[in-house]
Amino acid sequence: MHFHHHGYVSGDPRVQPAAGVGINRPTQLPDEVDVLIVGTGPAGMLTAAQLSQFPGITTRIVERRGGRLAIGQADGIQARSVETFQAFGFAERIIAEAYRITEMAFWKPDPADPSRIVRSARAVDDTTGISEFPHLIVNQARVLDYFGEFMANSPSRMAPDYGFEFRSLEIGEGEYPVAVTLLHTAGPDEGRERIVHAKYVVGADGARSKVRESIGCTLAGDQANHAWGVMDVLAVTDFPDIRTKCAIQSGTGGSILLIPREGGHLFRMYVDLGEVDPKDNGAVRSTTIEQIIGKANAILHPYTLDVRNVAWHSVYEVGHRLTDRFDDVLPEDRGTRTPRVFITGDACHTHSAKAGQGMNVSMQDGFNLGWKLGHVLEGRSPESLLATYSAERQVIAKNLIDFDKEWSTLMAKKPEEFESPSELEDFYVSTAEFPAGFMTQYAPSMLIGGTAHQDLAAGFTIGKRFKSAPVVRVCDTNPLQLGHQAMADGRWRIYVFADAAAPGQQAGAPSPTADLAAWLADATDSPLAATPEGADRDAWFDVKVIYQQDHTSVDIGAVPSVFKPQVGPFKLNYLEKVYATDPSADIFELRGIDRGGVVVVVRPDQYVANVLPLTATAELAAFFAPLLQARKPVEA
Amino acid sequence: MHFHHHGYVSGDPRVQPAAGVGINRPTQLPDEVDVLIVGTGPAGMLTAAQLSQFPGITTRIVERRGGRLAIGQADGIQARSVETFQAFGFAERIIAEAYRITEMAFWKPDPADPSRIVRSARAVDDTTGISEFPHLIVNQARVLDYFGEFMANSPSRMAPDYGFEFRSLEIGEGEYPVAVTLLHTAGPDEGRERIVHAKYVVGADGARSKVRESIGCTLAGDQANHAWGVMDVLAVTDFPDIRTKCAIQSGTGGSILLIPREGGHLFRMYVDLGEVDPKDNGAVRSTTIEQIIGKANAILHPYTLDVRNVAWHSVYEVGHRLTDRFDDVLPEDRGTRTPRVFITGDACHTHSAKAGQGMNVSMQDGFNLGWKLGHVLEGRSPESLLATYSAERQVIAKNLIDFDKEWSTLMAKKPEEFESPSELEDFYVSTAEFPAGFMTQYAPSMLIGGTAHQDLAAGFTIGKRFKSAPVVRVCDTNPLQLGHQAMADGRWRIYVFADAAAPGQQAGAPSPTADLAAWLADATDSPLAATPEGADRDAWFDVKVIYQQDHTSVDIGAVPSVFKPQVGPFKLNYLEKVYATDPSADIFELRGIDRGGVVVVVRPDQYVANVLPLTATAELAAFFAPLLQARKPVEA
Repeated sequence: MHFHHHGYVSGDPRVQPAAGVGINRPTQLPDEVDVLIVGTGPAGMLTAAQLSQFPGITTRIVERRGGRLAIGQADGIQARSVETFQAFGFAERIIAEAYRITEMAFWKPDPADPSRIVRSARAVDDTTGISEFPHLIVNQARVLDYFGEFMANSPSRMAPDYGFEFRSLEIGEGEYPVAVTLLHTAGPDEGRERIVHAKYVVGADGARSKVRESIGCTLAGDQANHAWGVMDVLAVTDFPDIRTKCAIQSGTGGSILLIPREGGHLFRMYVDLGEVDPKDNGAVRSTTIEQIIGKANAILHPYTLDVRNVAWHSVYEVGHRLTDRFDDVLPEDRGTRTPRVFITGDACHTHSAKAGQGMNVSMQDGFNLGWKLGHVLEGRSPESLLATYSAERQVIAKNLIDFDKEWSTLMAKKPEEFESPSELEDFYVSTAEFPAGFMTQYAPSMLIGGTAHQDLAAGFTIGKRFKSAPVVRVCDTNPLQLGHQAMADGRWRIYVFADAAAPGQQAGAPSPTADLAAWLADATDSPLAATPEGADRDAWFDVKVIYQQDHTSVDIGAVPSVFKPQVGPFKLNYLEKVYATDPSADIFELRGIDRGGVVVVVRPDQYVANVLPLTATAELAAFFAPLLQARKPVEA
Repeated sequence: MHFHHHGYVSGDPRVQPAAGVGINRPTQLPDEVDVLIVGTGPAGMLTAAQLSQFPGITTRIVERRGGRLAIGQADGIQARSVETFQAFGFAERIIAEAYRITEMAFWKPDPADPSRIVRSARAVDDTTGISEFPHLIVNQARVLDYFGEFMANSPSRMAPDYGFEFRSLEIGEGEYPVAVTLLHTAGPDEGRERIVHAKYVVGADGARSKVRESIGCTLAGDQANHAWGVMDVLAVTDFPDIRTKCAIQSGTGGSILLIPREGGHLFRMYVDLGEVDPKDNGAVRSTTIEQIIGKANAILHPYTLDVRNVAWHSVYEVGHRLTDRFDDVLPEDRGTRTPRVFITGDACHTHSAKAGQGMNVSMQDGFNLGWKLGHVLEGRSPESLLATYSAERQVIAKNLIDFDKEWSTLMAKKPEEFESPSELEDFYVSTAEFPAGFMTQYAPSMLIGGTAHQDLAAGFTIGKRFKSAPVVRVCDTNPLQLGHQAMADGRWRIYVFADAAAPGQQAGAPSPTADLAAWLADATDSPLAATPEGADRDAWFDVKVIYQQDHTSVDIGAVPSVFKPQVGPFKLNYLEKVYATDPSADIFELRGIDRGGVVVVVRPDQYVANVLPLTATAELAAFFAPLLQARKPVEA
């Protein structure tokens, strides 16, 4: 955590100094805003939290409810989401209160007596070490609370505007071209409409999104035909795996997906209610909690479930639906104009809850979009950057829905329908990287470079998220995870993995690392040259260096100054960007980094954007040039 | 974290339901209180935080200042303190914001040119793995903030009463025998005195303690004769180890102890100001910050220090002083009456700041005392328990002062005075367990059993803190640290390390674990029999079992019910007390536990109280009998 550089901070260092719109922030929703986010679910809150780091931008997030969500339906948290939480500063706290999945158990009819279930297999979660973060279960309401806290502590002192329902929008002209009609749903003005003008609108308003409707998008996909009862309950049971995630298939019909929840007692069950007649017309939704509990007891036989308290329950039918675009630009208009309205999360993609994916993919929608809006509105980047959001995320949602269809279908199969006895657990184990959130790979674009030099850093796949590895910080000899030093502050990151020479040891000889450092610091075409006058040298680009030596062999005095930028009003040298290799876990070995050195460029949302040789300054300049509008103004 | 067992909790689970005095807690200091704590430093705040878990007890903590401490002087946090913070639920958060010490560097005069310093050695912190927690540096004000948050979230909703200065006390008769005169130091009543009547008073009012004075205790010890300038500053420097803890000895006279601080820039320097003439009469204290900086530059030569901002500075002379008792019972009255007034922390022991010990030892004073007051006031335990506080802690303070004298003397030595070139770093490394906080070993008493069976669990030394080790929780297959499952909730802990049989596999054969479980659950002389009617079965005793098998071999259905107590209004079985061995780190091996099984009794303040065979039910009953007044009332 970086603080005290503007003088001694007495209180919680997580509370950043107020700046820009955060100074005397109006509690009332203004008439004109830069970004209006509709909906305080995971996608909307992450987008807002990211934008809260841009105090030059007026971002407001409206919510139909009068206040905080009390009990949400989503609860599955992939390791990729926990990584994301780490960047927002609350991973360790949410881990402490969440349920952690370390194994999944599979129960099947006992071959000797198919009326009874028996445990047939256990599968360990993340056997491949795809992430150093755990797989969690925690109520969505708590995730939103943490994002809310992050916003409140941000320079912009952001807080949701509760009690506003989105009605419609119209896109016109001028500086604030989107006119949004909102309805007061609470307070003295309840029932009254008002209009807010925005530069950009983000629809994070769920499966029944009115923002989606207003831009002419529709969800398309299959009809629901299988119903599930879902309940969050407290119960006494003799079922031994009640605190373990389980897929339970009975011989007498039906299956259960059991998800233990945080706190030591609560659990969720998805109880199979079977195929639904297309003419059922929603009648299945009137299934009572007693009927769901009865069905659960039948499936669990010979074990019993004595439900003592019901926190929440519902009945739903699985549907898989997707929009073909995530913004307001019609296919025929692509390239001729840039988007003004975006949709995220359930507004774009709906599917079953049982793979624990929805909240996670929705948050990554927000993570993808938030910084892009920030960079465009600050004038760092051209508006064309915004077209990459729909292009990148729509295909991810498509992959998700394909995966979920397969998983839901497997979960609904009868035991006799499986091709092999272990088909379900084999699928679970073999596809683990997908539900953990790490299969996302963005295609080449203005944001994602080509793969010409991928072999210089085989472990940092271009287009995939930057996978952390251990390093040692030189200045304080702390062993750390390199990836955890990247906060969700909207900055690009340039990781310089040094050539084989230690700093200061290259006297006379050519030194690619030192040459690159000099170019980054001084060249007019260096991306750092775009950093605004008066801002800290690392305000837009966080440049870190990792040497191949251990920390005792790195003389920090000889490290080029671009890696030790001056920060704050006292022009203090910030030394925490200089790293050495941990001999017990060599990052060069772990990530397949060429000993000749390499530059790895990482986006603000943690995806690897480019991998280049240390000498490829022209390519590095060319990569960033189109992204740095401030330096090369784009004609309106 | 354990929650939802009283029904669904929507918000932060760290906020416990209000109970007892926490329901409509008066904001004004009442006239009668059970415990009055004077002073909101580390000792006082920990004592209050511990007592906040006893909502049947009215505890108030008064502070002379009008509000929160803005900048404190203590900053060293031993691993033992971080362990303690873990029990109070904030270890992970304070670690995230603190500076972490992983190495210490030693600088000496360059033999070739003694006017210049050179790095002579590096010493790795905690090479012995004495704790899984780190050694930290963070301002005392933040430690107090976290204890304050814990209290506020506790059932008693405790908060300090600011603006009251302690004047005097008198011990009389009656239910609230201690009459305390306080002075309003702020607000409308400023300057007015008031009297509060208390059952017990805790003086945590620092080195100039008036509570100490009021009970006739005096600090005795050596005179100060060596002065140090201390400064917390932001600076630009070419000294390469500015972010590493350093002991720096110059050839030109004087030394520096450098302590990097949280946030990446701030650091503290203790700068040697040399021997003080006894006739100096405090003149050294007028040394200016410019003089301290000048001296620091002279010592650091050839490096320079350009101080840009001074957060705090002071001049002090090292003194080592101690009181001979920590309560109001005179030596001649011991055994005839029990104490009513206690002193803690700097009120009892003062010494140099440079070993980073003071705050840590003070907090352990509070941890030792808090639960004892709670148990006595709740009627669990007899008043005689309170006499153990002074008996246990006075000797610890004596050890601390002896250690600090040695360290201070070494730090003040001139290079030519050392017996060997590495004397300083050798001392630092060889004594590491002491400053880390783990040498405390309480002597046998009503609270600490004899060592007859110590060899059954060699790694859990009786009288020392319970050292955690990895285990796997059976119900959810989570790998965990066993010690981290013990919160600062005032409960005794009984760890049952099972014999070699897995649960349910002992049919017909004698099973010491099952027999002990049955005795604990049902015997009239079991300590659990003291648990109040209507309370959860684990309200006073947290009984956990650790099997020798891995988790796949433990059938939780066959585990005796005392290890799966019913809790809350729905009588839910709490399954998180059943553990298996982690095959990759076998706790039985790591802690030298006999394969025949053993019972390890741990105090609420985490010290091992007893080690007994599984069959020693009579000894277990005899150990607890004197501690459970509710069962065996003591005549007044």
